[in-house]
Amino acid sequence: MASPSLTSSPSARTAAHVTADDIAALAAGAAIFGTGGGGAVYTSQQITERAIREHGPVRLLSLDDLGPDDAVIMMSGIGAPTVGIEMLASTDQVETLLREAERVAGRRITAIMPAEIGGSNGVSPAGWAARLGVALLDADGMGRAFPEATMISTNVAGVPCAFAVLSDVVGNVVTLRTVDLGWLERHARAVTVAAGGICLGAHYLLTAETARGAVIPGTVSAAIRVGRALLEASDPVPAIAAELDADVLISGKVVDVSRRTEGGFVRGSITIAGIGDDRGRLQRVELRNENLVVLEDGEVLATVPDLITVVDLETGHAISTEMLRYGQRVSVLAWACDPLWRTERGLELAGPRAFGYDLPYVPFERKDAR
Amino acid sequence: MASPSLTSSPSARTAAHVTADDIAALAAGAAIFGTGGGGAVYTSQQITERAIREHGPVRLLSLDDLGPDDAVIMMSGIGAPTVGIEMLASTDQVETLLREAERVAGRRITAIMPAEIGGSNGVSPAGWAARLGVALLDADGMGRAFPEATMISTNVAGVPCAFAVLSDVVGNVVTLRTVDLGWLERHARAVTVAAGGICLGAHYLLTAETARGAVIPGTVSAAIRVGRALLEASDPVPAIAAELDADVLISGKVVDVSRRTEGGFVRGSITIAGIGDDRGRLQRVELRNENLVVLEDGEVLATVPDLITVVDLETGHAISTEMLRYGQRVSVLAWACDPLWRTERGLELAGPRAFGYDLPYVPFERKDAR
Repeated sequence: MASPSLTSSPSARTAAHVTADDIAALAAGAAIFGTGGGGAVYTSQQITERAIREHGPVRLLSLDDLGPDDAVIMMSGIGAPTVGIEMLASTDQVETLLREAERVAGRRITAIMPAEIGGSNGVSPAGWAARLGVALLDADGMGRAFPEATMISTNVAGVPCAFAVLSDVVGNVVTLRTVDLGWLERHARAVTVAAGGICLGAHYLLTAETARGAVIPGTVSAAIRVGRALLEASDPVPAIAAELDADVLISGKVVDVSRRTEGGFVRGSITIAGIGDDRGRLQRVELRNENLVVLEDGEVLATVPDLITVVDLETGHAISTEMLRYGQRVSVLAWACDPLWRTERGLELAGPRAFGYDLPYVPFERKDAR
Repeated sequence: MASPSLTSSPSARTAAHVTADDIAALAAGAAIFGTGGGGAVYTSQQITERAIREHGPVRLLSLDDLGPDDAVIMMSGIGAPTVGIEMLASTDQVETLLREAERVAGRRITAIMPAEIGGSNGVSPAGWAARLGVALLDADGMGRAFPEATMISTNVAGVPCAFAVLSDVVGNVVTLRTVDLGWLERHARAVTVAAGGICLGAHYLLTAETARGAVIPGTVSAAIRVGRALLEASDPVPAIAAELDADVLISGKVVDVSRRTEGGFVRGSITIAGIGDDRGRLQRVELRNENLVVLEDGEVLATVPDLITVVDLETGHAISTEMLRYGQRVSVLAWACDPLWRTERGLELAGPRAFGYDLPYVPFERKDAR
């Protein structure tokens, strides 16, 4: 059943709104796009629903809806998602952030967008837009979750990041003009740790012109659609797969979890033994915060930047890498990333080698088409 | 002998300039005002002399010289002075800093001033002013050196710090708007560590009106005068003491050094056994980066915020707390701090209790007047 609030016909897109009733679906979908990372969505879902109930539905703009006076900025939570579960944002933290971004930019900001659609950062911007009284752009900077600031569509497209602003729960605001995104990552991380482990951030001020080709379009509404399919289907896994045009690589039981926390990342792998039609097969999923590579009998079935998500076999809900446990019944879904990540620059930033795997990138396509 | 360049008559003050020939004296004097801290002056002296030879003498303004169009900002190096000896500032780091401060302030900055006159931070601003083509205000924010951002005259006077800007050697620029100076210290420290251990910083944008009563006047020219007395006198210690209106508390030999590096500070004490006329006397100097308290036979002779400097008995050069060694022949000088530090707020921020000593503050006055 289609959402009554989120219209999917392109011609009606300008009238689309995100309502509080869309947020459970957005959260479930964002977890799927999180490919195992991006942080737990439950707290963000609660806060976002509440913000929209209080401030009203949020206008969802497509790239085509942007006019010459529009200015869009990417927003996200930065730091340890586990801290974010307990240390909530202060009530005016996002207002402080937007005010400072407008001061630095010297112009009014009319819309915000998620820096990443995967995980809690895909959910929260809807609530922030409600609080701020601005629109939400139906797009993000990753089309998934990635662990590093350099892995963003605007960087692939060569759009410079003129500044970034951070606000912390205390009321401090920090503006960064860095020589590159590596230094942005380094300084933003230092401030975030000093602030207690989590900050809100805004960066990449975009116009209708600079956004085109530099963001991944349609990902907010895609997350809501996928989440709704998950929540409403009687058999969720095939429903999600159909919505994503994804393959189910295996359905089985987690028989081994090898995982350590190292350098601020979750690293390791899990092994899944097939059940039902997949009995006798074994797959290994390599992970570093996100799921990165799927292997079976020495063959690489899928690699980053294509999307790999481990979901609960019954409910279809995504299982994040830190929640994987021995004995879980799961399905592994894989689907194609946005074409932007398949360019030379995209693969340099976020291909298997960027994650330390000495593997060539082979585009993931539907098995039956191979 | 008076400096040919630095005129001391008030009526001619507007014509005063700091030339390259003043910098050796400025460095020696700033080390004296460093009260054991503030960082070694030698590298700053070299860089500053070179900058002034290249760009020309720097106009030295008194507070009375400031007009309605003037805007002054405090500048200083932040981080570990020991790093600063090896990791020099990049050639355009101070220009980047000023440009960003002007952008944030929305106005042209016509003069800079040292945040602290003590140590290398009292020397470098003369060279920065030369590079930037702006004037140097004959004033600072401490009248000495202090270890923490909260211990600054503008804070005593209740002037708010609207923003601070940091620039690092890489070319990154960070602007901080913090709820208080404690958070400024915390975030600036985090960025400085991430930047490799040292940054240049600018904060406290002041006008003729807000500067009055909120800065310590005349300290740049005072440092030059004291340094010149030190460099030119045949018997430097009495010459410095006369210039500073200071007491020589003891002259003797360092017979014990108890010092550890803890929490980023040098802490400990030294014991000095008198020689010559002071034979048979023992004094202890307590220190934390700076010299804080002098005791003799259980009596407190001087405490912070009054100034205590240990100098070489022969040369008169200040010995910083990390350079104190067993066997050194030294004199201990003490003199009165600026009246601003003797106010209730001044003592709350920088009195003995602010440094963890459960001692009342007793103003240091000349021994013969007690």
